[in-house]
Amino acid sequence: MSQNLAEFCGLLRYLILISTTAAGTGHPTSSLSAVELLATLMFDGYFRSDLSSPSYANNDRLIFSKGHACPLLYSVYTVLGVVSVDELNTLRQFESVLEGHPTMRWQFTEAATGSLGQGLGVGAGMAINAKYTGLDYNTWVILGDSEMAEGSVWEAMASASYRKLDNLIAIVDVNRLGQRGETMLGHNTEMYRQRCESFGWESFVIDGHDLDMIKQSFETITSDKSKNNGKPKIIIATTFKGKGVSFLENVEGWHGKALNLEQFHDAERELGEIRTDLIGSVSLPHPTNIVSQTKKTNKQSSLVQYKLHTNTSTRKSYGENLVQLVGSDPSIMVLDAEMNNSTFSEFVAQKYPDQFVECFIAEQNMISIATGLSCRGKKPFLSTFAAFLTRGFDQIRMAQYSHSNLKIMGSHCGVSIGPDGSSQMAVEDISMMRSIHDSIVLYPSDGVSTGKLLSLTNDFMGISYLRCTRADLPVIYDNEETFVIGGSKTIQTSKKDVITVFAAGITLHETLKAYQALQSQGIYIRVVDLYSIKPLDIEVIQRADSETNHLIVVEDHYREGGIYEAVCGSGAVSKAIYSLAVTKMSRSGTPAELMRYMGIDAEAIVTLVKEVLKH
Amino acid sequence: MSQNLAEFCGLLRYLILISTTAAGTGHPTSSLSAVELLATLMFDGYFRSDLSSPSYANNDRLIFSKGHACPLLYSVYTVLGVVSVDELNTLRQFESVLEGHPTMRWQFTEAATGSLGQGLGVGAGMAINAKYTGLDYNTWVILGDSEMAEGSVWEAMASASYRKLDNLIAIVDVNRLGQRGETMLGHNTEMYRQRCESFGWESFVIDGHDLDMIKQSFETITSDKSKNNGKPKIIIATTFKGKGVSFLENVEGWHGKALNLEQFHDAERELGEIRTDLIGSVSLPHPTNIVSQTKKTNKQSSLVQYKLHTNTSTRKSYGENLVQLVGSDPSIMVLDAEMNNSTFSEFVAQKYPDQFVECFIAEQNMISIATGLSCRGKKPFLSTFAAFLTRGFDQIRMAQYSHSNLKIMGSHCGVSIGPDGSSQMAVEDISMMRSIHDSIVLYPSDGVSTGKLLSLTNDFMGISYLRCTRADLPVIYDNEETFVIGGSKTIQTSKKDVITVFAAGITLHETLKAYQALQSQGIYIRVVDLYSIKPLDIEVIQRADSETNHLIVVEDHYREGGIYEAVCGSGAVSKAIYSLAVTKMSRSGTPAELMRYMGIDAEAIVTLVKEVLKH
Repeated sequence: MSQNLAEFCGLLRYLILISTTAAGTGHPTSSLSAVELLATLMFDGYFRSDLSSPSYANNDRLIFSKGHACPLLYSVYTVLGVVSVDELNTLRQFESVLEGHPTMRWQFTEAATGSLGQGLGVGAGMAINAKYTGLDYNTWVILGDSEMAEGSVWEAMASASYRKLDNLIAIVDVNRLGQRGETMLGHNTEMYRQRCESFGWESFVIDGHDLDMIKQSFETITSDKSKNNGKPKIIIATTFKGKGVSFLENVEGWHGKALNLEQFHDAERELGEIRTDLIGSVSLPHPTNIVSQTKKTNKQSSLVQYKLHTNTSTRKSYGENLVQLVGSDPSIMVLDAEMNNSTFSEFVAQKYPDQFVECFIAEQNMISIATGLSCRGKKPFLSTFAAFLTRGFDQIRMAQYSHSNLKIMGSHCGVSIGPDGSSQMAVEDISMMRSIHDSIVLYPSDGVSTGKLLSLTNDFMGISYLRCTRADLPVIYDNEETFVIGGSKTIQTSKKDVITVFAAGITLHETLKAYQALQSQGIYIRVVDLYSIKPLDIEVIQRADSETNHLIVVEDHYREGGIYEAVCGSGAVSKAIYSLAVTKMSRSGTPAELMRYMGIDAEAIVTLVKEVLKH
Repeated sequence: MSQNLAEFCGLLRYLILISTTAAGTGHPTSSLSAVELLATLMFDGYFRSDLSSPSYANNDRLIFSKGHACPLLYSVYTVLGVVSVDELNTLRQFESVLEGHPTMRWQFTEAATGSLGQGLGVGAGMAINAKYTGLDYNTWVILGDSEMAEGSVWEAMASASYRKLDNLIAIVDVNRLGQRGETMLGHNTEMYRQRCESFGWESFVIDGHDLDMIKQSFETITSDKSKNNGKPKIIIATTFKGKGVSFLENVEGWHGKALNLEQFHDAERELGEIRTDLIGSVSLPHPTNIVSQTKKTNKQSSLVQYKLHTNTSTRKSYGENLVQLVGSDPSIMVLDAEMNNSTFSEFVAQKYPDQFVECFIAEQNMISIATGLSCRGKKPFLSTFAAFLTRGFDQIRMAQYSHSNLKIMGSHCGVSIGPDGSSQMAVEDISMMRSIHDSIVLYPSDGVSTGKLLSLTNDFMGISYLRCTRADLPVIYDNEETFVIGGSKTIQTSKKDVITVFAAGITLHETLKAYQALQSQGIYIRVVDLYSIKPLDIEVIQRADSETNHLIVVEDHYREGGIYEAVCGSGAVSKAIYSLAVTKMSRSGTPAELMRYMGIDAEAIVTLVKEVLKH
């Protein structure tokens, strides 16, 4: 077997080198170090997958957290006969699905990688999915040693052992060299072992080029005894970057560099005879009754009813309505970062603990777990203070490339949270979430609209953001009102409208107060609830632009990237727009004081309207 | 001594309770658990500071990473006589500098905290500053146990031991309870110890309410033997949340809740007699010759000269010019996240290793270290791929509240990086960096402008962002050109201008190609280099708006929050603007293919100009 595996290794090395040399770009040396690990995993029976059905629910999952080593991944699938050598040689080309880092355009990519340190959290999500759904697949995550410096890895480590994910297996390719030199720990695998074990993982320190040793560790890991011991597993493998080619092996200065043709031929000679006729195969997964895994339910969800003019917070309505959705849909998973009594996802934790994942204060890992769950067909709803979503911006950014279906709620937005002060106030979250490709950004203003908008995000496929407010606010919508993605609500309008004020969330309530004050003075403004910030209701904005003389946007958010700029850039307006937004550094105070200080309260709106009308 | 300390503890508890009850909001229970730890540290001689001069260079530094426990911090300074009880009772009020989480408005705040898990990295920055500057102060960081779930803490742990920061002391208040219940590890301090020791820290597990035990650990830590042993230290203290008040102690559901008056009186009775007359004092710091610490130099920096029409990348120019600045200014520190051969900060690493801090692949920690250095008066320049700056958005967000002076460079922006694919492409970085309060965002297009803009960021006090491109691009500016914050360069203009095209970075070069193509067909466009994206050159935009019929913005960035929306929202334009931007999901390919695919190359500009002119 090992003789044959050695031949597979030679072939993988050859394919790594021809494809990267053909591309003239890529990471051959980072691929070469993990050849023995992957060859053994894939061709020696440990990895189980039905290659004819990559999405089959009980396939083992393979996540290349060190995404830059994908020439190895693609070469493995070439040896498995599902990628041709010709296709392999299209690596990194515009029309090729074999991109510079794995993306969802290639059918065998489990999750897009390339921003280091995220694969383990995504893998944890997939392992949680297996436990929840009752499937026995393993999730294998290939990590580089450089990325062990990323805190997100240790968030995933802590979380996986806490959740007893014994179906999650990490393989760290400790090739000693990062992009620019030696890593922090170099080849000190003993130090890695101590760290991993202290984080509750069963650890195996091995020589990552010794096929027998690798095999032995996989045997142990996949044995019945180890499989259900409640511990995630990690193989810490000493390897050499560029292994197998003398002028590359363990040599600095070769990160992310392809060989030229002459260097390739030198390397080829060193590799010796290559058995290009070899075809590998993987074990088939265990059959599973997938239908039984979905835990179907016949319950229909219905939204919570709110009484007009009563007070509730949108974050509370989020929790109240979410628990309704969860009860009727077993594919929903709810994630929290130790804030569930502020975001009210605690209602789910209490009623449906199986569908609730406590991620503790580790926002990055929460988002990665959600991505993993989404990649396995679940619908993750995740929430924390909107300000702390910035902690996971890179994870949200990568989630878009994994075509993730994330329903993100950020609570405590804006300066209106009051006394907690600036660190807890999200004044850049709209901007951040708008800058995710094809995302939707919704911003409810009362209990009813929260339920309706939450329901829209539930049906939306992609990354959605629901912006919720801390304060209790009066219910202004009837329970029968309808809301749509890209919609708005014109709450006050008459033939006398001189100015349109666009608002959302808490500033909508300020605008309605301003409306009353102005109306009593004979001034009529049109009040539009722009609850759908992305996409915007272009038609209603255009109409306001043509029917009223001036436009104002008022928002509890920085001006940059917020609602004002979104409206300005919508192409729907022909005139300058006035902006009331957060333009000063915030601080502690009462909500009213802070909204006054920022000039986004009713008084500021009244003042601006009167000033504008003077011109 | 301990008898007296016990009385100090009673007084601190009393002050915590009166101030939070007066505020009607705050975190008394999270404050109560760390009373003995802080009382011993501050009043028993271990903490050294000249309270009359909070900015004195050799003062010990105290960072409340668990910022929500600031009622304890403020109470300590009340006992020290520098905050009056009246002032303490203004906690969380709008006019008070004693905010809900510590901010720079209070003179004793070392760094703003409140987003958990960031204090240790900031402390590491301050500890690095001491080592670099030759000062013997200690940096003490008070952490909560909940925040130990944040990966950023472990980034700081790994980095601090790697850098042998034996002047950094962490105190973890293991009070078992997070916001919504028990933490992952509860009171398992042994597990914390194993984790911390595996990360290279000298660890002390103690009873955090036992004054003798606390004292003993401080004695050991501050002893001459331990002080220079090359190991950062951590005290893992078992405590109880709400300690000292029976109905609060170790009870769930009390996070972030102030007592009402009745509850306060119950608590007061339990505390027994309070010695409100006690005044504490801290030890004075060691005197130091600060002048000798600044390592003055008489060297003048001069920017690198580039020859017109030769090719260079702006990222390389960054490195070449940065090394010039560093050589003449010992207050500059350059930080890297394992990318210094891509960002070319390697030139600094090679020539001025003392002023270079390798942070490995841990972007969050890089930013926190930079914040710590900045708080101690250094000028940190930090860089990585622009895409990976999103990893540290929360840290950048918090840096603004610490009034940090961060010079951030993001390289490899936009889809034009080519074959590496979407994960490596920053198409949301302008949006992110614009949404930082009072930030500046500069975007050079050639070697000369990079040097000039870098120089502007060097002189700017605040958070600046320099956006650099991977590709080699021709030098278009003379070495004598001047650039200013809020400026622009009108590169092509004539009386025949019909359209203005605003561009920056790589799209400026595409626009210049389009200019040539259009000019040959008798169509004249005005070409403006909007190198200062924040703030914008309002005057030049207004002039273009009034002098040319149409405006186009072309950028290698998502439309949301990018240059187009910035111009739209600038208030300087009276008409609709056309946008060429990244609006599709990117992928691998050549730079030219990707810019064509996104419609941001010369051809797309030519096509749009002609189309616009048809109307």
